[in-house]
Amino acid sequence: MKSVTIEKPNALVLNEIPELSPMDGEVRIKVSKASICGSDVGIWHGKNPFAKYPRVIGHEFYGVIDNVGEGVDPARIGERVVVDPVVACGQCYPCSVGKPNVCESLQVIGVHRDGGFSEHACVPSGNAYQLPESIADEYASMVEPFTIAANICAYLKPTEQDIALVYGAGPMGLTAVQALKHVYKVKEVIVAERLPERLQRALDNGADRVIDNSQASTQSLLGETKPTIIIDGACHPAIFAEAASLASPAARIGLLGFSNSASEITQQALTSKEISVFTSRLNSRRFPTVLDWFDKGLVAPEKIITHHFDLADIEQAMTLFEHDAKACCKVIIDINKNNS
Amino acid sequence: MKSVTIEKPNALVLNEIPELSPMDGEVRIKVSKASICGSDVGIWHGKNPFAKYPRVIGHEFYGVIDNVGEGVDPARIGERVVVDPVVACGQCYPCSVGKPNVCESLQVIGVHRDGGFSEHACVPSGNAYQLPESIADEYASMVEPFTIAANICAYLKPTEQDIALVYGAGPMGLTAVQALKHVYKVKEVIVAERLPERLQRALDNGADRVIDNSQASTQSLLGETKPTIIIDGACHPAIFAEAASLASPAARIGLLGFSNSASEITQQALTSKEISVFTSRLNSRRFPTVLDWFDKGLVAPEKIITHHFDLADIEQAMTLFEHDAKACCKVIIDINKNNS
Repeated sequence: MKSVTIEKPNALVLNEIPELSPMDGEVRIKVSKASICGSDVGIWHGKNPFAKYPRVIGHEFYGVIDNVGEGVDPARIGERVVVDPVVACGQCYPCSVGKPNVCESLQVIGVHRDGGFSEHACVPSGNAYQLPESIADEYASMVEPFTIAANICAYLKPTEQDIALVYGAGPMGLTAVQALKHVYKVKEVIVAERLPERLQRALDNGADRVIDNSQASTQSLLGETKPTIIIDGACHPAIFAEAASLASPAARIGLLGFSNSASEITQQALTSKEISVFTSRLNSRRFPTVLDWFDKGLVAPEKIITHHFDLADIEQAMTLFEHDAKACCKVIIDINKNNS
Repeated sequence: MKSVTIEKPNALVLNEIPELSPMDGEVRIKVSKASICGSDVGIWHGKNPFAKYPRVIGHEFYGVIDNVGEGVDPARIGERVVVDPVVACGQCYPCSVGKPNVCESLQVIGVHRDGGFSEHACVPSGNAYQLPESIADEYASMVEPFTIAANICAYLKPTEQDIALVYGAGPMGLTAVQALKHVYKVKEVIVAERLPERLQRALDNGADRVIDNSQASTQSLLGETKPTIIIDGACHPAIFAEAASLASPAARIGLLGFSNSASEITQQALTSKEISVFTSRLNSRRFPTVLDWFDKGLVAPEKIITHHFDLADIEQAMTLFEHDAKACCKVIIDINKNNS
């Protein structure tokens, strides 16, 4: 079968690897479609501290179960599924408090173990969520990106009274905008971004107002508005302190970034307004929530998809995703076109 | 009547000022006892950014209502009361989400308006909480310091599964230790502190384990232990980043400090473990909670009281509190000795 393997940093190959058999407790998925995440590019370029090589990448994917391992009900064969990439031990402290996403033995599909940019992928049965019929094949791989928004929103607890500021109108920012506006129905969603094409995409995804902070400070562009929720979907270290200074008293800030450059922030900036700061990594069992959002039509996955490529063109697709932030949001890879 | 007035930075006087009459909606309190907080010393030395001068200081106090203003039930006369120092508008965003402590028009008694180091104090009726009979006069002014612990704990939501690390064994640290151990019954409470006398006081207040981080790094002293809750009651800017590095995945950090020196922290240090950071300022309507703790004997206010002074010796008391961190925890000022 064909798989996208990062053999070592900067060595991406579309190679033929032996057919997989599901191990005990696993299902094998004939992958239909997958989509590219920034972390796939990070593994490709050796910038992901968790990746071991060689690695089959990809953690946003959809397909059909075509085989099951020992202990899995064979009735699952034929199920259309999406895959939660978080594989956790279920026993440690984080697992015991509902945060398998920071399990002490965390294994992320496509990072710590082989992923879904492949004709077949084997995953623990419990990680494969049946897709409601209402969700079309072409949007199914978008479920995982929306779980990132669902996870941070679960901590921020947005309400209809909130004014939200979202930094960045890439995939993380736009899924957050959709969740805030269409699921939680916050009063106003403002997006701060530096690229005009992305500002337009933010409006298309439901932002009430966009501000181009390449031209002036976010502070001056916000004017009198004091956001009560701020989500950093741009992940620059300078944003944390800026967010604290812009925030309303009693605001909540959500951080999604993994930068290892230090942010400089005073405790006074946080404590004087009693700001809470929530961080979010991957998702903690948010697939059922997002499948429900999709099933009810609360979010519009089509609005974040900008490109389609065949598996054969994976390197071209990943290069475009990496370098053309203006044009790209989510890039879909067609893997098995005639899935049943 | 006698009042402790800070006339301007570094000018503390015990002066005679005209008798107060309660305004509409206020009660007048004949103050029995008060206690000293670090912020009183801050106002004295011109280090509190919110204080206006001249100011009668003091926001931890207890007394008996001896007069009421228009609109207040005269039946309150004779009530033994403690005073929530947070005076809020009730209308703004923070007030609407239950955070009057960061009200946009916040007035703190003893900071923005005159306080309780005085023979009489007038406060809004709703800020004066009736003291249960079970609470002795001598401990009553300790209710307010425990509301600081109650407030941060309300956000951190400690459970019996938690291992808590508390930095600092001053008043904030010790009230937190008592709340964590005796109210929330967390599995283990560890206190990190640099003064041997304070380490002993931490043990006396319920800490399971103390570590002297003047001699070695907190990290090395903790060994394999990964705290799931960390409260910074020492309020040094370096602690935030250290706390993030020591914390368990899925931990919560509570910050109480007001330093305006920057902490340097990477987003990776927080996000990789999905750490939540809660800050706490004063208290958001925690008096009923703490009165219940006192009434049920869950906390031991006598364990944090180290000194008593007469009002006449206020400057000596505040000087001791400021300079003798080894000997001092809470210092009580006797104001009207024959209150009825």
